[in-house]
Amino acid sequence: MMTLTFGVIGAGRIGQLHINYLRTHKDVKIKWISDLNCDKMSEWIEKSGIQNKTKDHKDIINDPEVDAIVICSPTDTHVDIIKEASAKGKHIFCEKPISLSLEEAEEAVEAVQKSNIKLQMGFNRRFDKNFKQLQNILSKGELGQIQTLRITSRDPEPPPIEYIKRSGGLFMDMTIHDFDMARYIMQSEIVEVYATGEALVNPEIAEYDDIDTALITLKFENGSIAMIENCRRSVYGYDQRIEILGDHGAIDVGNEQSSTLNYHRTDGIRRDNPPYFFLERYSDAYRVEMDGFIDAILNDTDVLCSIEDGYKAQQIALKCKESLISNQPKRI
Amino acid sequence: MMTLTFGVIGAGRIGQLHINYLRTHKDVKIKWISDLNCDKMSEWIEKSGIQNKTKDHKDIINDPEVDAIVICSPTDTHVDIIKEASAKGKHIFCEKPISLSLEEAEEAVEAVQKSNIKLQMGFNRRFDKNFKQLQNILSKGELGQIQTLRITSRDPEPPPIEYIKRSGGLFMDMTIHDFDMARYIMQSEIVEVYATGEALVNPEIAEYDDIDTALITLKFENGSIAMIENCRRSVYGYDQRIEILGDHGAIDVGNEQSSTLNYHRTDGIRRDNPPYFFLERYSDAYRVEMDGFIDAILNDTDVLCSIEDGYKAQQIALKCKESLISNQPKRI
Amino acid sequence: MMTLTFGVIGAGRIGQLHINYLRTHKDVKIKWISDLNCDKMSEWIEKSGIQNKTKDHKDIINDPEVDAIVICSPTDTHVDIIKEASAKGKHIFCEKPISLSLEEAEEAVEAVQKSNIKLQMGFNRRFDKNFKQLQNILSKGELGQIQTLRITSRDPEPPPIEYIKRSGGLFMDMTIHDFDMARYIMQSEIVEVYATGEALVNPEIAEYDDIDTALITLKFENGSIAMIENCRRSVYGYDQRIEILGDHGAIDVGNEQSSTLNYHRTDGIRRDNPPYFFLERYSDAYRVEMDGFIDAILNDTDVLCSIEDGYKAQQIALKCKESLISNQPKRI
Amino acid sequence: MMTLTFGVIGAGRIGQLHINYLRTHKDVKIKWISDLNCDKMSEWIEKSGIQNKTKDHKDIINDPEVDAIVICSPTDTHVDIIKEASAKGKHIFCEKPISLSLEEAEEAVEAVQKSNIKLQMGFNRRFDKNFKQLQNILSKGELGQIQTLRITSRDPEPPPIEYIKRSGGLFMDMTIHDFDMARYIMQSEIVEVYATGEALVNPEIAEYDDIDTALITLKFENGSIAMIENCRRSVYGYDQRIEILGDHGAIDVGNEQSSTLNYHRTDGIRRDNPPYFFLERYSDAYRVEMDGFIDAILNDTDVLCSIEDGYKAQQIALKCKESLISNQPKRI
Repeated sequence: MMTLTFGVIGAGRIGQLHINYLRTHKDVKIKWISDLNCDKMSEWIEKSGIQNKTKDHKDIINDPEVDAIVICSPTDTHVDIIKEASAKGKHIFCEKPISLSLEEAEEAVEAVQKSNIKLQMGFNRRFDKNFKQLQNILSKGELGQIQTLRITSRDPEPPPIEYIKRSGGLFMDMTIHDFDMARYIMQSEIVEVYATGEALVNPEIAEYDDIDTALITLKFENGSIAMIENCRRSVYGYDQRIEILGDHGAIDVGNEQSSTLNYHRTDGIRRDNPPYFFLERYSDAYRVEMDGFIDAILNDTDVLCSIEDGYKAQQIALKCKESLISNQPKRI
Repeated sequence: MMTLTFGVIGAGRIGQLHINYLRTHKDVKIKWISDLNCDKMSEWIEKSGIQNKTKDHKDIINDPEVDAIVICSPTDTHVDIIKEASAKGKHIFCEKPISLSLEEAEEAVEAVQKSNIKLQMGFNRRFDKNFKQLQNILSKGELGQIQTLRITSRDPEPPPIEYIKRSGGLFMDMTIHDFDMARYIMQSEIVEVYATGEALVNPEIAEYDDIDTALITLKFENGSIAMIENCRRSVYGYDQRIEILGDHGAIDVGNEQSSTLNYHRTDGIRRDNPPYFFLERYSDAYRVEMDGFIDAILNDTDVLCSIEDGYKAQQIALKCKESLISNQPKRI
Repeated sequence: MMTLTFGVIGAGRIGQLHINYLRTHKDVKIKWISDLNCDKMSEWIEKSGIQNKTKDHKDIINDPEVDAIVICSPTDTHVDIIKEASAKGKHIFCEKPISLSLEEAEEAVEAVQKSNIKLQMGFNRRFDKNFKQLQNILSKGELGQIQTLRITSRDPEPPPIEYIKRSGGLFMDMTIHDFDMARYIMQSEIVEVYATGEALVNPEIAEYDDIDTALITLKFENGSIAMIENCRRSVYGYDQRIEILGDHGAIDVGNEQSSTLNYHRTDGIRRDNPPYFFLERYSDAYRVEMDGFIDAILNDTDVLCSIEDGYKAQQIALKCKESLISNQPKRI
Repeated sequence: MMTLTFGVIGAGRIGQLHINYLRTHKDVKIKWISDLNCDKMSEWIEKSGIQNKTKDHKDIINDPEVDAIVICSPTDTHVDIIKEASAKGKHIFCEKPISLSLEEAEEAVEAVQKSNIKLQMGFNRRFDKNFKQLQNILSKGELGQIQTLRITSRDPEPPPIEYIKRSGGLFMDMTIHDFDMARYIMQSEIVEVYATGEALVNPEIAEYDDIDTALITLKFENGSIAMIENCRRSVYGYDQRIEILGDHGAIDVGNEQSSTLNYHRTDGIRRDNPPYFFLERYSDAYRVEMDGFIDAILNDTDVLCSIEDGYKAQQIALKCKESLISNQPKRI
């Protein structure tokens, strides 16, 4: 089996997560890391066994030995990197979203389509074993026609206001995962959205034209309807659930348990909350998505989450923002 | 303790349910039954120990011995009976809805307001022990401000098309319970609705301008937002659940269990579906609501579900219909 | 349908429970109540609509109009009443146990066997819908051969010491229900027991040669083995569960839920304890067992829990006491 | 941080599991593998990056560079290896049991006690996060005095008869984990046992004087009583649960979920069975126990599971065998 040479662009929280897994992967060698703060991270990089660090991602893209890159840098750098890397024939794993601008995202899509590379978007939830199992059952048509889909997606606590300012807004930052999940699960395109929302958790968020709580209605090409609920705060932990209703039954996917212990006392029965942190909740999914990317390169198969998927989720996010502002449903 | 003399108007399925309970109630004597088919029911009526039957409900209303009536006749008779009975000082328990027409419902509200009688609407779900417990926790403010409320309400199978034709439509017939529940739980008025829906279960329903599946977004005076999901068919049983998210946590109220048995086999762990039939699911609630009505009369206290509550639920149902037709949010 | 005339002997807690149900039963008229304290209960008896009260149960047994009696008097009166009533041809519903003495119980069994009457023992748990469902599955042989059975039976709090003194001991008073359940579920006879136990909850109980916590091993004729766990105190409520393991799977029957509400907070997810009080836990079962008794009389069919069942449970209880004292397994 | 040099003795299923983890451990270098079949495993060993292989474990023990060994060879080799390795000052991780003979085990204990080494027994379940959490709650005394403990431990399917023959019997092979868990959870010594059991799953097992189903009663120094249930077959998966009852409540630790998906259909609600394979169920625990061993060496702290713990579990297993044969309780 051939070994793939990787470069990772951006070594923040999510970049480090990917690096930690890639360094144990039998088919991968990480040759490069690029990060503006890479000087401060020398020790960590050395421990990770990575030979080269740089502040300029172009050093990676221009290295002919590099087979694939992982883009974990800030969103506003994604499109340029995608265009440069696809021109050089590097395979790309890219964290979401492609861009905050739909026009720029389109340029990225075109660049990839013209090239021969694999690009996989980092919609990690598709690779969660529970959601994957749901999707398998649906793919087989076991439920028949679908009437409704419901996605609950709540963060344990809101990010700092500084993050909110640059996030692109709730729909682009948080719900984008749910838009992708809705398309992935339903296997039909979204044709209309209606979004409502408020800054109910932290009113300061409203000052930056953003919201922290949302209910979004989706209509699909196949006639099914769906609802996404988001909130930036669920004090009991990271809440990620899906329910679907069809002709022959319903399926719900609940939260993971932190433990299997039930404590019976005079005041009731207590069990632990689900994991609080998204990296803990999806720790396996992050590995499985990277395995999938590596497999797609090695076996020259389709990626399981394409740049077109990324583009569509982004498009829906923008339509939701329009819907929220106008208080009108919007066609896609 | 004084004994109340009751007359029951309409001896169909729900009428019989109330009669069966009232005949065991220590503070009640049922003196009259009125039903257009009462001739065919002689045996059943006799067994129930009720002395008088009639085809004309006015016989009941004009009987000075009668303290209270229970209206279980078709919806289009409700308003006239309410007006007549309240004029005669009879207390009224009335099944939902007041009317399919808001103007007529208003007349009924006025008639009751001018009188001195108690009128309780038959929103039985308020009296379910689980939803009641949820409401108690919320009344105490334990969750703090509420961000979202979600009500799932699915019937096991659609009613016959004949029923659909005369039902007033999904919102007036089925969702009306959920509108009442939303107001009851949230303790705040609904100020805007957006409804979407389709005839996804039985396309024939669309021929009668009705739908069988709906997602409804609600905005409340207090800023909270809510979602109601309805479907006329959930093959696994009657599905009645509520979820609420607030500052200090979340509460979900699940379905009742039909049994506590778990069956572990090679192909997985199986447990029983929830009760299939709404009369089974809410059998206790029907008794508790009637106890509440009797208590309100005997102790001269406020009913726990007033005609104004009935009017408001009806108003919301009509706004949802407008929203569905126009595909626009509607203010109340 | 003919109406059965009943007399109830003993109007304590359990007697009143049976009376409250029998007075609503369409096929039954309660003509008599006997209780040593019946003078103090005049008002309650009158309200119950029962015409005759007496301190002497013989008044009931000698009344030729009486079809059936319900024995809820103290255990030491059971055998005499059974002998007298069966001689007079009265059907008998008898609370457990038959007697604290096996010899006396044998006399009662013989008296019943010589007569033509129905006698049903008050092992109410056989009539619980959950345990009944378990038994149905097992009767059909779905699990194949059984390896193990486990019965958990815990009271929420120990009875007063005064009760303990006259109770006949844990095995005769509490475990007797579990012995009956073990036989009922397994459909095989118990051939050996080994009992261990201590007064771990209240050491004062040891002063009366009794225990409050027990683990009992049972061997069955069919080769299966079983374990019963008892404790006089489970602070979180009345705990009644069964587990069974067989060739083709396992079944567990859990506790009933007091509500379906889950409360998610920062410190975990809380749900309500099971019902605290046995009369609440088995409220339906008490009605179903009485229906079964009435049906057996009216249709002349076998009772679902015979005096022989009562005798066998008692025999096992006594062998367990022997086992506990000798710390040796005992053959039945 | 210093790097520890390891040798692994025995590269069967469990040996390979430990090797796979140790090779990713930052503080460990595996220098040696010894296995009688090591010639056939050359490729696997090479891939694992281990330089030296041998058929003679003494090559490892005599290598002065080796800091620690992991004993995964057949049980009858354990005592000699422990004696040799402790004499050479090698730290030891040893799979259970120490030996099938108590006298030999005693020699091993003495050898370790005379040396200065760390020896950790491979009772992996102590390191399961769920059981650990239970133990933490108990250590804090939250439940008060304990009345009963119950351990359920069922394998999904019986091992081959060839394995049974050499296993030392159910108690020594399988229940030994539960004996250790009982001591670990209860924090009190077992003073008496009574064991009953049969070959109910596979009668052929009886031909080798062994059983496949057992119920074991334990009495503890602190007065508490306990029950262990074992079966060699639970067709729905590996079943590992604990329940404990105390003054202030009860705790149950259930099985892990394979997924969080509930499938609602007309015939009931289905969820997945727990993991089938013990290596999957305890995959984390195997890593955590090895971390603990490495930590104990590096920080010179006590191991969390000592050779004395191994000895005591073995002693109880032998007493249970005596109890089973004589059908008598046995004092420890």
